[in-house]
Amino acid sequence: MIYTIEKQTGAAFTLKKGSLLKVIDPQGEQVSDMVLFNADDIREKISSGKTLDFENTILITQGHHLWSNRSHKMMKIVEDTNGRNDFLLAPCSAETFEILYNNPNYHPSCFENLYTNLSQFGIQPDDIPTAFNIFMNVQFAADGTLSVDPPQSKAGDYVLFEATMDLIVGLTACSAEQSNNYSFKPIQYEIIK
Amino acid sequence: MIYTIEKQTGAAFTLKKGSLLKVIDPQGEQVSDMVLFNADDIREKISSGKTLDFENTILITQGHHLWSNRSHKMMKIVEDTNGRNDFLLAPCSAETFEILYNNPNYHPSCFENLYTNLSQFGIQPDDIPTAFNIFMNVQFAADGTLSVDPPQSKAGDYVLFEATMDLIVGLTACSAEQSNNYSFKPIQYEIIK
Repeated sequence: MIYTIEKQTGAAFTLKKGSLLKVIDPQGEQVSDMVLFNADDIREKISSGKTLDFENTILITQGHHLWSNRSHKMMKIVEDTNGRNDFLLAPCSAETFEILYNNPNYHPSCFENLYTNLSQFGIQPDDIPTAFNIFMNVQFAADGTLSVDPPQSKAGDYVLFEATMDLIVGLTACSAEQSNNYSFKPIQYEIIK
Repeated sequence: MIYTIEKQTGAAFTLKKGSLLKVIDPQGEQVSDMVLFNADDIREKISSGKTLDFENTILITQGHHLWSNRSHKMMKIVEDTNGRNDFLLAPCSAETFEILYNNPNYHPSCFENLYTNLSQFGIQPDDIPTAFNIFMNVQFAADGTLSVDPPQSKAGDYVLFEATMDLIVGLTACSAEQSNNYSFKPIQYEIIK
């Protein structure tokens, strides 16, 4: 069964060790922020710093693992048809739009869509770590400067993850204009096994 | 008064809003991992993902701020005589030495030196975020590959921070061979005002 996360919304669910999660960009050029927690102890969660350290690269894709703050493997990336993801930037939040984009009004955000959907598991806003930003195209220059460019993903591109522990997963269809080329679209996912 | 953090150890202390913290590399080629918590609520803490996002660069130095997971400025970098710091990699831990360096034996680590010194403030191991790694020289290639190179800091180089909220600070003299060119040295710090 394929689930659809409508534009600018999110979802949260459990995923058993050994199960596969397929995250699909059905229309192309859309980003999905993903956070992971150990289903048995939510104080263990996905860590950008540990993942970049153990995988020795900024660009996390097929063949790499996503690691936790306790130095455990949480997921393996089995397949990645697009190949570009980001693990540098925090999920967009109300403050992202206010500070970076001068928008003081209400704006949906991945941060809100993560913590509201994850609250059923006892996860609070302060517990949300830097997400693994699937399909997000953050380019870095030699001098370190970052730019958030349109995703390179085409309609139907997907990333296939295998859970290497029992997990709670938070997933969004990103709400930020700049991250998805100024067009809000859904994200789809499928749990296999 | 200048405090010395002996090689492969750490320290933790409070820092009032408006106070200056000077972190000094007294002998050169040494790294200091720093984590920050809001002194009034330790669930607010330094965030690599938020800092890289708001400052729009991987390379954080003079003129930049260190931001929290709640999108608040925690510190301003007032001066940086070396200019190269890292905010990608997690503090070295027992697992760093075991997994990356095939050393299954006990090894001091920044992670241990942070949580043991910060425990007096009610901060636990799972609360330690990715640190701002002062003087750490992590090079990134265009394809994303990372390499931990010897620090470029010379004896006497320092970074001067101004607290922009009341803080709890954790600070280390890094324990990892690769981060400081295979020679363990102290770190010094001074609190001004």
